[in-house]
Amino acid sequence: MDRFIFIALYNMQRPVILVSNDDSINAPGIKALVEVAKKFGDVVVVAPDSPQSGMGHAITIHEPLRLHKVEVFEGVESYQCSGTPADCVKIAIDKVLYRLPDLCISGINHGSNASINVIYSGTMSAAMEAAISSVPAIGFSLLDFSFDADFEASKHFAEIVIREFFNNGLPDACLLNVNIPKLPLEEIKGMKVCRQAVAKWEEEFEKRVDPNGNEYFWLTGNFVNYDKGEDTDVWALENNFVSIVPVQYDLTNYQGITHINKNWNISNE
Amino acid sequence: MDRFIFIALYNMQRPVILVSNDDSINAPGIKALVEVAKKFGDVVVVAPDSPQSGMGHAITIHEPLRLHKVEVFEGVESYQCSGTPADCVKIAIDKVLYRLPDLCISGINHGSNASINVIYSGTMSAAMEAAISSVPAIGFSLLDFSFDADFEASKHFAEIVIREFFNNGLPDACLLNVNIPKLPLEEIKGMKVCRQAVAKWEEEFEKRVDPNGNEYFWLTGNFVNYDKGEDTDVWALENNFVSIVPVQYDLTNYQGITHINKNWNISNE
Repeated sequence: MDRFIFIALYNMQRPVILVSNDDSINAPGIKALVEVAKKFGDVVVVAPDSPQSGMGHAITIHEPLRLHKVEVFEGVESYQCSGTPADCVKIAIDKVLYRLPDLCISGINHGSNASINVIYSGTMSAAMEAAISSVPAIGFSLLDFSFDADFEASKHFAEIVIREFFNNGLPDACLLNVNIPKLPLEEIKGMKVCRQAVAKWEEEFEKRVDPNGNEYFWLTGNFVNYDKGEDTDVWALENNFVSIVPVQYDLTNYQGITHINKNWNISNE
Repeated sequence: MDRFIFIALYNMQRPVILVSNDDSINAPGIKALVEVAKKFGDVVVVAPDSPQSGMGHAITIHEPLRLHKVEVFEGVESYQCSGTPADCVKIAIDKVLYRLPDLCISGINHGSNASINVIYSGTMSAAMEAAISSVPAIGFSLLDFSFDADFEASKHFAEIVIREFFNNGLPDACLLNVNIPKLPLEEIKGMKVCRQAVAKWEEEFEKRVDPNGNEYFWLTGNFVNYDKGEDTDVWALENNFVSIVPVQYDLTNYQGITHINKNWNISNE
């Protein structure tokens, strides 16, 4: 085959990878993820212009969005958006990309999104928004909240996960929630495919009084794991493994359907 | 039994019902739900002080919350909170209620939360937050976005659903997403227990230019149902039934676990 034709075909087939996050386009975590993504395809970044942690799957309905092209990552088309992580993915698909991307990756989050945190996570909502639009998606999170967290081990495992996705795929409507322990690479024992642990935050709002004498409250809380299973993400992380939880957006509880059909009296009302 | 002892015991056993929503404490929909709830127990309302539609499972981490006791519903202890629906339920459990409520109900939302809307819904996130805290929870939504929607049929069905919950229960960690068609009571054919339809919003951001010459975008979109099943919430609603979808917050995709364990090469990395 003529070399130029070969190169042209090769470029046509390079995957398009959308990258987003919730810590904002200026966070070190997204820079680390962009560096990994560039090894696999043509990268486009659409990420929030300010931190959006804890935004869950919020979308912006009552305000307009701003979208600006920015020069943040060398050789990578990048945009910052005034909206939430889910907004970023929506506007990327509708207004930025010329076709559906082959993969959307989100993160690397500064902080854990294991267990019930998946529900509150802006990082995972970006991935979920992509999955809802039929784009395979993976969220990555490092168990280190600090701005200057060390992402070297995270990059190593993100590269393996993305490689395996491109080689061996995922089922339809299945995204991944990948969490990496805060450890040097040599202390991480490997990767485990897990279920979401049964755990929750026990809130303790801290009451304070402002200079005008009015009360206000800060959300604080303790993460409590009720799940003794050794097949959970919390177990894996506590035992120095990277956790991979396959996630879905069909929230139907099928046991609940059976329970109501069997026990409830609603058929004649 | 002495009448006073009987009354005291009866009052001790009256259920405590927490009511929240996402349209704000001043929305007609929550007033309708409070009226129904009062038939079943002692009602406490903690709801947002401003509309929070589309907030998904957002929580407020970087700002403090305000909580004010208000007189909105006759004979009902009520608080407005500056946070999201999920915040309202968290602060209700930690700071307002003297014990875990027996039920949390959210709504009645002005607008559908059927199918994929469950992901974006503030109404359902209030219910989900309660369920995560081991409180049984039900979200109610009427397929009418207007402020002056007619909630009479919704109240009728909410009462039946709450009665059946108290009589016949729900499985652990199972909440309900109840949607009511925009029809007079006599045209509604009954209730169906359903799964979440496979559907999504196809976004079309509308680009405009502000007076300063800068672009901005409004989120618009069309709801597209890809699911031909007659066991879905969308089918039920289109066929004039109330839909009841049991919902869970374990997002694990168990087929995904099998797929990765079988096909991916990650065991030695």
